[in-house]
Amino acid sequence: MHVQVERSPVRVRWVNPLGYDGYDEPISDFINRIKDDHSQIEVVSLDFSPSPDNLEYRAYEALAYPSLVHLARDCDQQGFDAMVIGCFYDTALEAARELSGETVVLAPCQASIQIAANQCNRFSIIVGQQKWVKQMKDRVHYYGYGDYLASMRSIGVSVADLQKDVAVTTEKILTAGRQAVEKDHAEALILGCTCTFGLHQKVQEELGIPVIDPIIATLKMAEFLGLMKQQFQLSPSRLGSCQPPPEAMIRQFGLFSGPAPIAKSITIDPA
Amino acid sequence: MHVQVERSPVRVRWVNPLGYDGYDEPISDFINRIKDDHSQIEVVSLDFSPSPDNLEYRAYEALAYPSLVHLARDCDQQGFDAMVIGCFYDTALEAARELSGETVVLAPCQASIQIAANQCNRFSIIVGQQKWVKQMKDRVHYYGYGDYLASMRSIGVSVADLQKDVAVTTEKILTAGRQAVEKDHAEALILGCTCTFGLHQKVQEELGIPVIDPIIATLKMAEFLGLMKQQFQLSPSRLGSCQPPPEAMIRQFGLFSGPAPIAKSITIDPA
Amino acid sequence: MHVQVERSPVRVRWVNPLGYDGYDEPISDFINRIKDDHSQIEVVSLDFSPSPDNLEYRAYEALAYPSLVHLARDCDQQGFDAMVIGCFYDTALEAARELSGETVVLAPCQASIQIAANQCNRFSIIVGQQKWVKQMKDRVHYYGYGDYLASMRSIGVSVADLQKDVAVTTEKILTAGRQAVEKDHAEALILGCTCTFGLHQKVQEELGIPVIDPIIATLKMAEFLGLMKQQFQLSPSRLGSCQPPPEAMIRQFGLFSGPAPIAKSITIDPA
Amino acid sequence: MHVQVERSPVRVRWVNPLGYDGYDEPISDFINRIKDDHSQIEVVSLDFSPSPDNLEYRAYEALAYPSLVHLARDCDQQGFDAMVIGCFYDTALEAARELSGETVVLAPCQASIQIAANQCNRFSIIVGQQKWVKQMKDRVHYYGYGDYLASMRSIGVSVADLQKDVAVTTEKILTAGRQAVEKDHAEALILGCTCTFGLHQKVQEELGIPVIDPIIATLKMAEFLGLMKQQFQLSPSRLGSCQPPPEAMIRQFGLFSGPAPIAKSITIDPA
Amino acid sequence: MHVQVERSPVRVRWVNPLGYDGYDEPISDFINRIKDDHSQIEVVSLDFSPSPDNLEYRAYEALAYPSLVHLARDCDQQGFDAMVIGCFYDTALEAARELSGETVVLAPCQASIQIAANQCNRFSIIVGQQKWVKQMKDRVHYYGYGDYLASMRSIGVSVADLQKDVAVTTEKILTAGRQAVEKDHAEALILGCTCTFGLHQKVQEELGIPVIDPIIATLKMAEFLGLMKQQFQLSPSRLGSCQPPPEAMIRQFGLFSGPAPIAKSITIDPA
Amino acid sequence: MHVQVERSPVRVRWVNPLGYDGYDEPISDFINRIKDDHSQIEVVSLDFSPSPDNLEYRAYEALAYPSLVHLARDCDQQGFDAMVIGCFYDTALEAARELSGETVVLAPCQASIQIAANQCNRFSIIVGQQKWVKQMKDRVHYYGYGDYLASMRSIGVSVADLQKDVAVTTEKILTAGRQAVEKDHAEALILGCTCTFGLHQKVQEELGIPVIDPIIATLKMAEFLGLMKQQFQLSPSRLGSCQPPPEAMIRQFGLFSGPAPIAKSITIDPA
Repeated sequence: MHVQVERSPVRVRWVNPLGYDGYDEPISDFINRIKDDHSQIEVVSLDFSPSPDNLEYRAYEALAYPSLVHLARDCDQQGFDAMVIGCFYDTALEAARELSGETVVLAPCQASIQIAANQCNRFSIIVGQQKWVKQMKDRVHYYGYGDYLASMRSIGVSVADLQKDVAVTTEKILTAGRQAVEKDHAEALILGCTCTFGLHQKVQEELGIPVIDPIIATLKMAEFLGLMKQQFQLSPSRLGSCQPPPEAMIRQFGLFSGPAPIAKSITIDPA
Repeated sequence: MHVQVERSPVRVRWVNPLGYDGYDEPISDFINRIKDDHSQIEVVSLDFSPSPDNLEYRAYEALAYPSLVHLARDCDQQGFDAMVIGCFYDTALEAARELSGETVVLAPCQASIQIAANQCNRFSIIVGQQKWVKQMKDRVHYYGYGDYLASMRSIGVSVADLQKDVAVTTEKILTAGRQAVEKDHAEALILGCTCTFGLHQKVQEELGIPVIDPIIATLKMAEFLGLMKQQFQLSPSRLGSCQPPPEAMIRQFGLFSGPAPIAKSITIDPA
Repeated sequence: MHVQVERSPVRVRWVNPLGYDGYDEPISDFINRIKDDHSQIEVVSLDFSPSPDNLEYRAYEALAYPSLVHLARDCDQQGFDAMVIGCFYDTALEAARELSGETVVLAPCQASIQIAANQCNRFSIIVGQQKWVKQMKDRVHYYGYGDYLASMRSIGVSVADLQKDVAVTTEKILTAGRQAVEKDHAEALILGCTCTFGLHQKVQEELGIPVIDPIIATLKMAEFLGLMKQQFQLSPSRLGSCQPPPEAMIRQFGLFSGPAPIAKSITIDPA
Repeated sequence: MHVQVERSPVRVRWVNPLGYDGYDEPISDFINRIKDDHSQIEVVSLDFSPSPDNLEYRAYEALAYPSLVHLARDCDQQGFDAMVIGCFYDTALEAARELSGETVVLAPCQASIQIAANQCNRFSIIVGQQKWVKQMKDRVHYYGYGDYLASMRSIGVSVADLQKDVAVTTEKILTAGRQAVEKDHAEALILGCTCTFGLHQKVQEELGIPVIDPIIATLKMAEFLGLMKQQFQLSPSRLGSCQPPPEAMIRQFGLFSGPAPIAKSITIDPA
Repeated sequence: MHVQVERSPVRVRWVNPLGYDGYDEPISDFINRIKDDHSQIEVVSLDFSPSPDNLEYRAYEALAYPSLVHLARDCDQQGFDAMVIGCFYDTALEAARELSGETVVLAPCQASIQIAANQCNRFSIIVGQQKWVKQMKDRVHYYGYGDYLASMRSIGVSVADLQKDVAVTTEKILTAGRQAVEKDHAEALILGCTCTFGLHQKVQEELGIPVIDPIIATLKMAEFLGLMKQQFQLSPSRLGSCQPPPEAMIRQFGLFSGPAPIAKSITIDPA
Repeated sequence: MHVQVERSPVRVRWVNPLGYDGYDEPISDFINRIKDDHSQIEVVSLDFSPSPDNLEYRAYEALAYPSLVHLARDCDQQGFDAMVIGCFYDTALEAARELSGETVVLAPCQASIQIAANQCNRFSIIVGQQKWVKQMKDRVHYYGYGDYLASMRSIGVSVADLQKDVAVTTEKILTAGRQAVEKDHAEALILGCTCTFGLHQKVQEELGIPVIDPIIATLKMAEFLGLMKQQFQLSPSRLGSCQPPPEAMIRQFGLFSGPAPIAKSITIDPA
């Protein structure tokens, strides 16, 4: 173990878990502004069809499962240091982690709350719709952060509409955030949807508390854990519940054999 | 509400969540021996390909997700009273429940522990492989039964081998069961894999404690809840976290539109 | 294990746990409308005296304890498949289960929440009086369903008054139910008193969510588990915490020796 | 509020919750050696019949319920400051508390663990038989002390035999206690049965850790809370879940009207 | 073990954990009115400097840590039966307990909730400022009483102002207390700051529920546990997590060697 | 928010929380090998006296509290992006966080488990002595990771001896680690003391699972969160429980006014 003076760039694959590529460009643009100079980020969407343009429902998430595990395996084969599943439900995270070999797999809910727990003792999550609350709350509890959760507050906006008029969305987030602070005693906010990118700064300035943007949180955490992998060979456990199917069995059934199910891919190279 | 003298048969669809039909006949045979005379049971496997012949891995479960939600929707459209997802991981249960309309969706882990909690205060789950333990334990906790769990004990046998030599498997279950009773103070056993069908009776007689066969537990619970639906119009909630995607949105994206992804189907009619 | 073509009727004893027989007839009438054709149901009240006409207080419940355990033992001796303790406090359930031999003992709170967990992810319980809330909430947590509980809401009506003017009671339940849905995000309701029988249907239709009547839930679950006992020899564990006193010791002290403490008994035979 | 120079003696009623008076004298003798000079202690057993000579089973406890609530009410009417239910199951504690008016009601499990939590961070409970474990563990969790519980270890001796040969019983407790310390990292012990009185001192000296005798713990805590009641008018809440039945209703049904169900009574007066 | 006819007085040291002696006299006066005739109580403040006049902040508490552990050790050396850390945050309780030898160390939060749990099933804690809530709630959960906590309600008054106008403070407590009862279904109140001494009686009378004054609760509990120590040699465990540093190591580093860090000391002798 | 092409170095202060400087050089050397080229790291020890050379006891930790909060405040005044408290007990973490202004404060236990939860579902912590277990386990639970904890295993070595013979220490860790894997089903290991630095690599290679070195985990996480602060103005909340004492009050009492309590300081500049 020694200083990595001339290390290779950390390579992260950001997956928009939809068979729809409408978010690829705006999210690439956003990531381009926040990524580390030394990282190479590939933003992809999946190629399953038909596909909805959002994952607000469990039934929609289900459609993305096969592609996501296939992609996790592909990330390992392509030597990615980290893969991000870009939905705050952390869709198929455990399944993707099982098949990702040496690639670290991350997702926004877990990454965001881990960072928030370094900035405060209680946070609220602002979500688009009440429908999401129970499932996300279960996630937060599953990760162990139930006692940090001041509240979950919905702004009544669907994923598809979050970026339509960012001034309106921001205003709704500010209103919900103020209620979280005043009524629920939240000390920080997490924006509970990857489609709220670009809004956190204003909210943070207006409310004067830490506001976690889930794309920033997850992308930067991916760069961080990717670096840990490069520098300290810290890659996922393959024991116990982390054990993947044996390669022989995968071959026997011809699983995950074709090309990775990627619809569109945008690569942002190191500066 | 009045007595249903001439009621229609309860209709249950049992899903073997694999793109592999090797279990369909033995499970149909087994179900034929345990079903209610008045029930109509359809045993199906899925038609996705390639498919493994077991779901021991999360990555394998992921492959079954799209078909399972599609099938849940189809159950509603075909007027099934109940649908069973035949894997003790309760694969995709929440997602299938979201899309099942008026059909009640069940799965073996939840059904088995609910029945066991009426027969004892502490139970152990006997599983095939250590790999399964963490995930199933999480399920048991998610359903609220963590305090009932005396232990989970593995017999070191893969799904594919459980029915190969039932005498050997039974012996291993007996050994694990005795340890559960003596060391973990289990008061009842649950067999933690649908592929252990046909073995519970001998174990129950030898150990002298209740032993839950997950196929029996889930099929009979499905008949029971199917009857509740017929007699008392008790069908799943469609509010809050149970809210499905709007029909208009499903049509807009052309989702779940083709025929149900059924590979093989065996129907057992009322006697 | 084979199909039970000519099986005997399932026999269930429903116990109104009071030394007061005023509920026996209306509850028999209600049960007559919901029972399975093949079941034989005996509705009994206890013969201890003096007795209150309700069990709203722990001190009242205490008076019913000796009779309830005696009755559990009698159920086994009379060959009942299942016994129901008809109070939503699930009065003396663990004690009765200890002495019930091969008879399965059920009670409304546990049965209702087990069924509700198949219909939704969050439910509220509508109770008669605020006094009941803490005790019932503890029960729900004890059974493991604390995370399913959206809220408990009181309508401010005593047991004795619940059936006085069912239109009034129904209206109060509707009001509390709407608040549970809107403020607490309940997805289903459970009526938290056996004396609310006959009201659930209207509430279910008006609110459009599953509404669990505790008599229906428990009686039907008792028929179901009684059937499981007949068909699969699934009767309660007698190990560990389920171990009853030795017969020799019971005889030595002359316990539970007289006739069963039944005041009044109404039997509903199979159709 | 001022110094109570000439205060009346604290009056505590210790209840052996059996219709059997065999423990009354030895326990009186023991209490006589540990009580405060200023306290007046009445040791009573109940007069229900038939009665077992132990409460190892829930079915036995059930027989004591009516007398215990009646006695709680009587304690209030007789002006006792505190009442103790002398069984480590804390039999009928909540029910007795409901009806005890201004009398504080205590029981050994709760009193012992509260004291132990001031002496250590982890304790083990030594019980007579494995049968008791689940029920007592539930109690400990119900009181909130689940995280303090290092283990529960059984010595395989019935209540009736605990005092037969105290040398043998002490030896068994020492063996179990050493295992609790070495294997379970217990830092203190609680003797989980009131019939182990007189043994704690030797165990404490041999093992060099705090050992809680449940009679000492509960009797002294009762004197303490009785003093708090006298000096600061601190008596039980009568709101919410602590609300007793209205007096009018008790009279209407003629409940708790006869003499207190006391079989035998030994009074130890202030010195 | 035998009756302690001529026992020595129980000796308790009450520590105001500040390098500020302004509370020493009023608290001594208060303690003088509530102490047992046979007890000797020493009220001390610490001699660290600079010191704030309150411990509302964790950063302030930190300043008191070294003196508190030193004092715990000194209590043992001076033969005190019990030591009280007089702040409702229970500042440095675990650390002081580690070094207190045979002296029992208590603090107001733990003592108050233990007593409250004998008087009710749900309590609310009335605190000075919202800032305190999270930390105290964590304490309550740490002690195991999370399920007893109806609510924590702030009256918006700083420690320094609590005794400025007791009529005003009392009025605010009454208002918060009524809300706790009506909205949160509290059955008893705990005053969550040692500087509210002298106010509980009026609140108790007005609201008609038990109201715990933390000084009374802790001082009396200290007398009680001090008595237990004298009479039954019940002193803290020194095993496992209770193990103190070896004396040789303490000497080697010259720790805790000077005089006890006491600024001012008021002794109240037995009557 | 835009790309930080020419950003200033991230500045982290690593605190060895002892008034003893013996670890400063070896830890600086270790940090020099793992730090990011762009970071500036200052390694300091505290200047309180007398001081032990380890923090294995709560009483020792207590001595470091005042300096740690003072140092947190100083970090903010000196413009550090992050401060690390270098002890796996996470000594005074909450108190230091309260006073750290815009500086993020981290500690090894929290940082290590957050990283581990991205690499596995169950981990064990290898500690030096059994004494540490309860306190560290409480920490893990407090952070929410109780369900991830497979076990804590002690190797029976004091802090002072951990680096004496690294071959011996490594062998003991390997033995404990193998038991954690085989008996407790751990999927990864965390080394539960900052004085185990330099050992993780060999353990990781031998056992073939992720092994977290707490210095690496915390230092790299500090660089990561320091970067988040620089790039996204993400600094600690100052609301609710995170609220610091008002500056006016700090000045009024003359608190934290002298020079920072630093004994020795080693600065490692950006490459």
